[in-house]
Amino acid sequence: MATQELATWSVNLQYANFTAPVIAAAVTSLYNWAGCAIGGYQQTAPSIALNATSPHFGGPPTSSILGLANNSAQTDAQIAAFVNGIAGHVDDYDDTHLATIIHPTGTVAAALFAVAEWKGGINGSDFITAFVAGVEAELKLGLSVWPQHYDVGWHDTSTTGSIGAAVAVSKLLGLDIPTTQQAIGIAATQVIGMQEFFGSDTKSFHIGRAAQGGMIGALLAQNGFTSSLQGLEAQFGWVHVVSTRENVTAEFDTLGKSWEILQNTFKPYPCGIVMHPSIEGAIEVQSAALGKGLSISDITSVNARVNPETLVLTGQTDPETGLEGKFSVYHGVAVGLLFGEATPSQFTDAVVTNSTVVGLRKLVNVTTDSTVREDEAYISALFKDGTNVTQHIDHVIGSLDNPLSTDQLKAKFMGQASLVLGDARAEKAYEAFLDIGNMSDVGTIVQLFSGANASGTSGALGLDFKVIDVVVMAVVLGLVALLL
Amino acid sequence: MATQELATWSVNLQYANFTAPVIAAAVTSLYNWAGCAIGGYQQTAPSIALNATSPHFGGPPTSSILGLANNSAQTDAQIAAFVNGIAGHVDDYDDTHLATIIHPTGTVAAALFAVAEWKGGINGSDFITAFVAGVEAELKLGLSVWPQHYDVGWHDTSTTGSIGAAVAVSKLLGLDIPTTQQAIGIAATQVIGMQEFFGSDTKSFHIGRAAQGGMIGALLAQNGFTSSLQGLEAQFGWVHVVSTRENVTAEFDTLGKSWEILQNTFKPYPCGIVMHPSIEGAIEVQSAALGKGLSISDITSVNARVNPETLVLTGQTDPETGLEGKFSVYHGVAVGLLFGEATPSQFTDAVVTNSTVVGLRKLVNVTTDSTVREDEAYISALFKDGTNVTQHIDHVIGSLDNPLSTDQLKAKFMGQASLVLGDARAEKAYEAFLDIGNMSDVGTIVQLFSGANASGTSGALGLDFKVIDVVVMAVVLGLVALLL
Repeated sequence: MATQELATWSVNLQYANFTAPVIAAAVTSLYNWAGCAIGGYQQTAPSIALNATSPHFGGPPTSSILGLANNSAQTDAQIAAFVNGIAGHVDDYDDTHLATIIHPTGTVAAALFAVAEWKGGINGSDFITAFVAGVEAELKLGLSVWPQHYDVGWHDTSTTGSIGAAVAVSKLLGLDIPTTQQAIGIAATQVIGMQEFFGSDTKSFHIGRAAQGGMIGALLAQNGFTSSLQGLEAQFGWVHVVSTRENVTAEFDTLGKSWEILQNTFKPYPCGIVMHPSIEGAIEVQSAALGKGLSISDITSVNARVNPETLVLTGQTDPETGLEGKFSVYHGVAVGLLFGEATPSQFTDAVVTNSTVVGLRKLVNVTTDSTVREDEAYISALFKDGTNVTQHIDHVIGSLDNPLSTDQLKAKFMGQASLVLGDARAEKAYEAFLDIGNMSDVGTIVQLFSGANASGTSGALGLDFKVIDVVVMAVVLGLVALLL
Repeated sequence: MATQELATWSVNLQYANFTAPVIAAAVTSLYNWAGCAIGGYQQTAPSIALNATSPHFGGPPTSSILGLANNSAQTDAQIAAFVNGIAGHVDDYDDTHLATIIHPTGTVAAALFAVAEWKGGINGSDFITAFVAGVEAELKLGLSVWPQHYDVGWHDTSTTGSIGAAVAVSKLLGLDIPTTQQAIGIAATQVIGMQEFFGSDTKSFHIGRAAQGGMIGALLAQNGFTSSLQGLEAQFGWVHVVSTRENVTAEFDTLGKSWEILQNTFKPYPCGIVMHPSIEGAIEVQSAALGKGLSISDITSVNARVNPETLVLTGQTDPETGLEGKFSVYHGVAVGLLFGEATPSQFTDAVVTNSTVVGLRKLVNVTTDSTVREDEAYISALFKDGTNVTQHIDHVIGSLDNPLSTDQLKAKFMGQASLVLGDARAEKAYEAFLDIGNMSDVGTIVQLFSGANASGTSGALGLDFKVIDVVVMAVVLGLVALLL
């Protein structure tokens, strides 16, 4: 009955059911993700995905690539969901539901924005209602199979994400309860994502393909395609096939009673979340050391004492690409110490292979301690003169107990969006997202902030990106030189 | 090393490596599948899939829908792979590698035909080489996780099929070894298909989506998208995530030494293969009973003694649709007794819900016996006058020990293709497929048999289908009346 219970809840859900904090969490989740999808387009994965598909398989252009943010960069909704899904996750900078390590917004938002722009006339409250339905669906489902499903190697963001996207698009399209059940079934039978692909382009492919798979599930169901009315709970359905543990009925019983979206957190650093406490510790060590007149180049060894999960997920000792660096706590500590920050600029191929960074990385020793929580870390650096600088992060920034402030969230958005849009348009985009609940046609949001460059070609913007990359890199490497 | 071993084998594979039986098996597999993809388009699933996607998401038309078989029915390669994949499997009439119950041709052929027609200039020997590479890949992989992977509920045709399609398309595109490894990784992380969806449109969706997923994997890898060089064997890669048992290195060591395609069999009946012995037994009981002057309407009870797997996979007692009837041994026995045959015409919604068929189905009792092999069955019918007619099927038709003859395979192809193409064009299609190894451009094969109707619209053909359906139904129901 779980599939029916989920579909029934979603179909009956109304915007009026939401408390103000739920709506606020939805709005924040959406603009945080949109910033990541705009900024993330500067990685290679999204543009490869677009260029390998759209020229050959792109239908009538209806839906925007957020990171291109101009009308000429539209493709069809199927490809837009795919590419924006990739772009929003490729920097590993999006959001996290800590109890499941699911990054919940990407699959659902990528599908919804693509469909809303294609269909037109979707108002903000309906959009947010569909979004929350999808997010709650994937998170309750994720909780129901946690941790066994994750421990065996599935990437639960995307394995649950196709189902979340199907629920959300079904809601947006106004499908009835049994048709929503059929859509859930079609999405459930597409299990996308394994942890082996972390640190490669395929990690973000998971989100794009799951977004697309869920969207296709809803469209097929709307057209009468059959699957199953019990795709989740059946003996050979989702929960039993992908997990040795499941608790789906009990979790779905809490739908609308406890809102998982209130547990969503936003990443301060664009990398695996379990290495965040170590990065913050390294940044604080740098600050303290510089305050004492010490030079980072005089460090002789670094020790990080962390929760064991840190090495399971981010234990790469010798990353060779920016993406691999996102799964290397060693790299995270090194850039925290060298740059005093960890933004997308610190996770480029050039920085990951920079000899100064590599040299410092090799001095980092990591020990695991099961008494250290996942949002906690102890970092100490030993300097040539014998000074030992130690910092303890009790609750890392971005965790539930220490969330990013509104200003920090805006700064995160602006830092990504302004690189592509420029400051004025990025500010306009931020304001548009804050007001998304009141929009009469959410599909037009991209046009709202596309500004004067709306007629620019994607090719021209592509060139702009490269110029920006060079500038960013020069600044970053200049900083390294200054610090040493 | 398994992923590398597979990629290395595939990249080095040459047409000259094949023995004549391997080539013959490949050719038979291809035309048997093509017949199913032409005939299967008369089910609703493929046309829903086409109509829900192509008008909105279809790119430049390059690739044909086989069941429409005219140039105006072209769409892009991504959608063609999807829709032809569905059409080739929707009748459950395609082919079977008995050791894994994988239907190997669909995913690989659907992807390859779509790409070959799109790219153009792919000759027959290269096409067959790519096809065999893909089929061997998926079957060796399937063997390596059998039976645990299947027993937990995965539909192994599609879970391995995305990988087979990726290997095949990589081979067709001439990708090198590491790029083929990357393609395998992208395909491996898309695990499509669970057994809960058997008996619905989504069973054949599995094949279409897996074909498309593998194809996209190869295209992304060709464009530099990264995944992993050990996507199959890594701790959190395919074999360990989807199965509690794996033997992939040992299986891949046999690549090119034992050819799995030689173990491929072709279905005589369009339904779950485990119910085939019961159907053949029922057909033989009918023949024997009519020979004795008995009337099928005088049957008072039917007993089928079968291998236990028969009820696991085809145990539906009260099917309500044609697709559900394909997973009901009760329905199979009933139509075998009533019609003396089991063709696609016996698995329509109308026949499944026909009161005479339902009445006879309710008289069928099935007992399982683990000493009865999967290709074996005992069927007996008790008549009003006390006569008991019993037949024992030792090796069912279509099994390795009793394969379909060349004439039977041709008749199967013609029975499906002629419904759409008419006899003359179907014959031309058959001849074209027999000669596929010598073609200079395999992508043109659809044009070779599209004939005078090439300029017809798909709308007109759609109407033809409905007329044909009515005629077939009238003939079928007339037969029932005659027999009773």
